[in-house]
Amino acid sequence: MSDRFTFSVSATSGDARVGEMSTPRGKIRTPAFMPLGTAATVKAMMPESVRATGADIILGNTYHLMLRPGAERIAALGGLHRFMNWERPILTDSGGFQVMSLADLRKLTEEGVRFKSHIDGSKHMLSPERSIEIQTLLGSDIVMCFDECPALPADRTRIAESMRMSMRWAVRSRDAFGDRPGHALFGIQQGGLERDLREESAEALKRIGFDGYAVGGLAVGEGQEAMFDCLDFATGMLPEDRPRYLMGVGKPDDIVGAVKRGIDMMDCVLPSRSGRTGQAFTRRGVVNIKNARHADDPRPLDEACSCPACSQYSRAYLHYVFRAGEIISSMLLTWHNLHYYQELMAGIRGAIAADRFEAWEADFHALRAQGDIEPL
Amino acid sequence: MSDRFTFSVSATSGDARVGEMSTPRGKIRTPAFMPLGTAATVKAMMPESVRATGADIILGNTYHLMLRPGAERIAALGGLHRFMNWERPILTDSGGFQVMSLADLRKLTEEGVRFKSHIDGSKHMLSPERSIEIQTLLGSDIVMCFDECPALPADRTRIAESMRMSMRWAVRSRDAFGDRPGHALFGIQQGGLERDLREESAEALKRIGFDGYAVGGLAVGEGQEAMFDCLDFATGMLPEDRPRYLMGVGKPDDIVGAVKRGIDMMDCVLPSRSGRTGQAFTRRGVVNIKNARHADDPRPLDEACSCPACSQYSRAYLHYVFRAGEIISSMLLTWHNLHYYQELMAGIRGAIAADRFEAWEADFHALRAQGDIEPL
Ligand SMILES: [Zn+2]
Ligand SMILES: [Zn+2]
Repeated sequence: MSDRFTFSVSATSGDARVGEMSTPRGKIRTPAFMPLGTAATVKAMMPESVRATGADIILGNTYHLMLRPGAERIAALGGLHRFMNWERPILTDSGGFQVMSLADLRKLTEEGVRFKSHIDGSKHMLSPERSIEIQTLLGSDIVMCFDECPALPADRTRIAESMRMSMRWAVRSRDAFGDRPGHALFGIQQGGLERDLREESAEALKRIGFDGYAVGGLAVGEGQEAMFDCLDFATGMLPEDRPRYLMGVGKPDDIVGAVKRGIDMMDCVLPSRSGRTGQAFTRRGVVNIKNARHADDPRPLDEACSCPACSQYSRAYLHYVFRAGEIISSMLLTWHNLHYYQELMAGIRGAIAADRFEAWEADFHALRAQGDIEPL
Repeated sequence: MSDRFTFSVSATSGDARVGEMSTPRGKIRTPAFMPLGTAATVKAMMPESVRATGADIILGNTYHLMLRPGAERIAALGGLHRFMNWERPILTDSGGFQVMSLADLRKLTEEGVRFKSHIDGSKHMLSPERSIEIQTLLGSDIVMCFDECPALPADRTRIAESMRMSMRWAVRSRDAFGDRPGHALFGIQQGGLERDLREESAEALKRIGFDGYAVGGLAVGEGQEAMFDCLDFATGMLPEDRPRYLMGVGKPDDIVGAVKRGIDMMDCVLPSRSGRTGQAFTRRGVVNIKNARHADDPRPLDEACSCPACSQYSRAYLHYVFRAGEIISSMLLTWHNLHYYQELMAGIRGAIAADRFEAWEADFHALRAQGDIEPL
């Protein structure tokens, strides 16, 4: 382990890269999938179970934590790692995305965003300086610049104005962050699906200089094809020697396509949220455990999966506890989904290291195309 | 391990006894507290975590399981142990108590109880024969006779009639159970708070002959003093060489008082249910984690407790996740409460083995009288 934040690529396969980030709190194998620890908990999971799935890093949400229990409170209690009992790396978002989607009475100015809490109506302000301060109070290992982006589709003028304000905010975020050895600050590229705006944004970020670079403003409703088309040019605009993070992505095939286009890190609510709504991700696609076909099925969800849900329970049990509304349903399916995502990443890393990513990708799609095992 | 059900007392201290039941699925140290695995899950717990708290046996509910997912289905899937991933002993109740408290449109006759499911309105019948059949389909290690009891207070005539029908049902239960080596059938004493009726019931049960004997019809609203007064005479009427089970009890001080009066086994929904409503049992009494005094408290719930909730989290975290409605709140507090109950039983067993139960009991009450630690 290093006392500084470092990143190195050890192998490539096409544009896909395998590598490692190092932080004082541990190494992060890339391509990495980061489970969401939104509100100081990966929902329905003990932190040691999250680690057991293979996760090297989790994500915390500035917007949620600033409202409850509060960043100053968490700092007084020893920081987010200690508070939530996760001693490995944590990446925090800036709050910019969630304040625009969740808060009430938002008012956006050059200074930042004023809003009311969706929980209790209390008034708050998020700015580049306050966002960095909160992330510092939390003790985040990877801190994100405060940015803003319009939902797509949006007109080009709105996208350009928004991107340019985010770039001015990136300068303020960089200044507010200062020099914190062992901690990383990531800039966020914006510009919608427009190549020249993405280029302009990337150039602005590179002039400022960051420890890593995120592709922001995607996975907001544009569809997979448009997202991949954008990644085809956007990723390559970011420095090769720094980690590249695609925010809020995604479904398993989104992840594979993003890695193929040079992405090193991703996060998504999907595996944990789906675990709570009865959807299981498997090598053969999504299984809806509430479907009546599973009621008498003694077989595991996925016979090749070594997670507790698959190795110790039948589909019949998983179906039953979901229908009965038992908490163990969320616990088991979340565990399985996070395990599946981490196994997916391990498979991806192995394929890149062996320079056979394309063949691996073909197998990945072929197995999914088979669909779930036949009913009994 | 034995291939038969056995019970032996190894030491006594006053009327309190320490001993062991042995079944092909494992030993059960007594006095034993049995967590509720009501609907094929100890709510918010993985079975391996239940075992880690020290539980040797859990309880399953016939009424819930017969309605959903169904006893025949569980049998086809290999039995309840395999279905819920708990390979150690399971005691099942007969369904008699819950059908009278939960089901709709109950009709009670000498034959049994006809009722409608509270889940989907479907029609069902429970009788001694059907209850034993269901418990056999589930694969229960300790099977309870089908009985009926009125809520207290009830008039003496009603209590006597009910008890006598339960004794006729006990004969039918015994006949239906047959000879199943390695499995035990327990009779249930009834008779409310009336000494002569309890005596009559005990004599009837002893004539039939059971592997163990339960004290039924208590902890149904009569209060602790009345319950203890009844146990003072009721327990001693049951055979000394068989385990004595007090059903549905109780709070920690109920448990201590019951053991003092010769009880060997208990079950109660309290530790798990309270875990989901923010109540924690500690050596110093009940802590209400939702109280604002805990919001900034970095100390553990109970510094002497080695459970995950106490060894890895602050009161501040437990307070926060409860208020935020996060699933981990139920997971951690349930774990703590079950751990507390099992440590209580281990303390009781140690004190009896050393023939110092009375001194241990005084310490138990003295520590509780101190109340929770002072706020910071
Ligand atoms: Zn699995
Ligand atoms: Zn504890």
